[in-house]
Amino acid sequence: MAGVMTLVLGGARSGKSRHAEALIEAEAAPWAYIATAQAWDEEMRVRISEHRVRRCEGWQTIDAPLDLAAALATPHPALVDCLTLWLTNLMLGEHDIAAATVALESALADRMAPTVLVGNEVGLGIVPDNALARRFRDEAGRLHQRLAVRADNVLFMVAGLPMRVK
Amino acid sequence: MAGVMTLVLGGARSGKSRHAEALIEAEAAPWAYIATAQAWDEEMRVRISEHRVRRCEGWQTIDAPLDLAAALATPHPALVDCLTLWLTNLMLGEHDIAAATVALESALADRMAPTVLVGNEVGLGIVPDNALARRFRDEAGRLHQRLAVRADNVLFMVAGLPMRVK
Amino acid sequence: MAGVMTLVLGGARSGKSRHAEALIEAEAAPWAYIATAQAWDEEMRVRISEHRVRRCEGWQTIDAPLDLAAALATPHPALVDCLTLWLTNLMLGEHDIAAATVALESALADRMAPTVLVGNEVGLGIVPDNALARRFRDEAGRLHQRLAVRADNVLFMVAGLPMRVK
Repeated sequence: MAGVMTLVLGGARSGKSRHAEALIEAEAAPWAYIATAQAWDEEMRVRISEHRVRRCEGWQTIDAPLDLAAALATPHPALVDCLTLWLTNLMLGEHDIAAATVALESALADRMAPTVLVGNEVGLGIVPDNALARRFRDEAGRLHQRLAVRADNVLFMVAGLPMRVK
Repeated sequence: MAGVMTLVLGGARSGKSRHAEALIEAEAAPWAYIATAQAWDEEMRVRISEHRVRRCEGWQTIDAPLDLAAALATPHPALVDCLTLWLTNLMLGEHDIAAATVALESALADRMAPTVLVGNEVGLGIVPDNALARRFRDEAGRLHQRLAVRADNVLFMVAGLPMRVK
Repeated sequence: MAGVMTLVLGGARSGKSRHAEALIEAEAAPWAYIATAQAWDEEMRVRISEHRVRRCEGWQTIDAPLDLAAALATPHPALVDCLTLWLTNLMLGEHDIAAATVALESALADRMAPTVLVGNEVGLGIVPDNALARRFRDEAGRLHQRLAVRADNVLFMVAGLPMRVK
């Protein structure tokens, strides 16, 4: 039987990561934390390090700024945090997003343990002036739609609380 | 008996149009596609043409960049795609939005067939610097509230999935 | 027994204030309207005055641009409108947000009458270019999460209609 897949969407500081961590910690340890963040600058290094400190024992971190599919080969319950930074890394590196999405979907189909994927909802403001920002929110929306089709659960976070979408 | 009215709201690339099309296609054909988009530039022409290709047989397109009320006189199940571009056209053309809204409400009250209206939720980001953008999101919010009062169903789309608001 | 606490979140022009007023007006009068708005300019003065006119008899206005905790000492059902302007006032005045939040939480814990707090959801758009805007949406998100934990009801407004989050 395939592992249960949960997609956790929400805005900035809506409690996505914390809720996603709690979902995985309800499973038997060890747990894989698949980190897509790249420490481009000091602010990012601090943020990443704070996230690590918050997570308790039982977590193994796998850095996967680009190759999410390979990271998901872990047999353990896995948290992908987050899709938004992964997509940013793909776009900034001019990688093939369509191909990477297909590889991700294939890796998800092969998962035997639970998987929780976190993504930022960025499409609910005024249309951005910036063309790259417009393209980014289109790509993010498309990715979330594709993953939502195959997810068992889709949650929309508001003020730290999950609303069930699926 | 009046036709059922459904308001489909959501962010960019949240699957609003696709879901709205499916709602109408569950009714007996033919179906009216009331298009508010104006092809200002090549990018827009491509986008409009892609939308047409996606829709299967049974759809009749009515272009209504400004006069939604007249277009809604069609006796067929009708999809208005979308309120956001209609409001943009009214604002850019300096038309009377209050009068156009009253005419729209009156046309909706006269509908005997099902109607689905699609609108972009744009008010959930940081307050825009741009005064026109601020006015636009105020107008859009007011319009959605007025239509939601008379709608039988209001849906909020997240990642291609509908959340029922009403 | 402590008074019921309700947190009403939503985007611009989503009908937050109107819904919050209706919740309080379902209680026995008099009602306290705790206003955090400061009339920096004419546009703001007009907006504030329009809000006052809309509210019917039975409302007592308490101005509290900064000291929400003191204003909440009122024994009457109280509406705080809104958290977003309060946070803006704290940030622009370089006040201690953490200390003010603790004081607010303590005042809320002491309430014996119902309390409704209104806040703008601002984290669902593209990451703002502006560093102050980024910090603001982080602070707003954190504040909403902390209040949501202790709230009895959390509502997310869409087109004037409440979705129950908690």
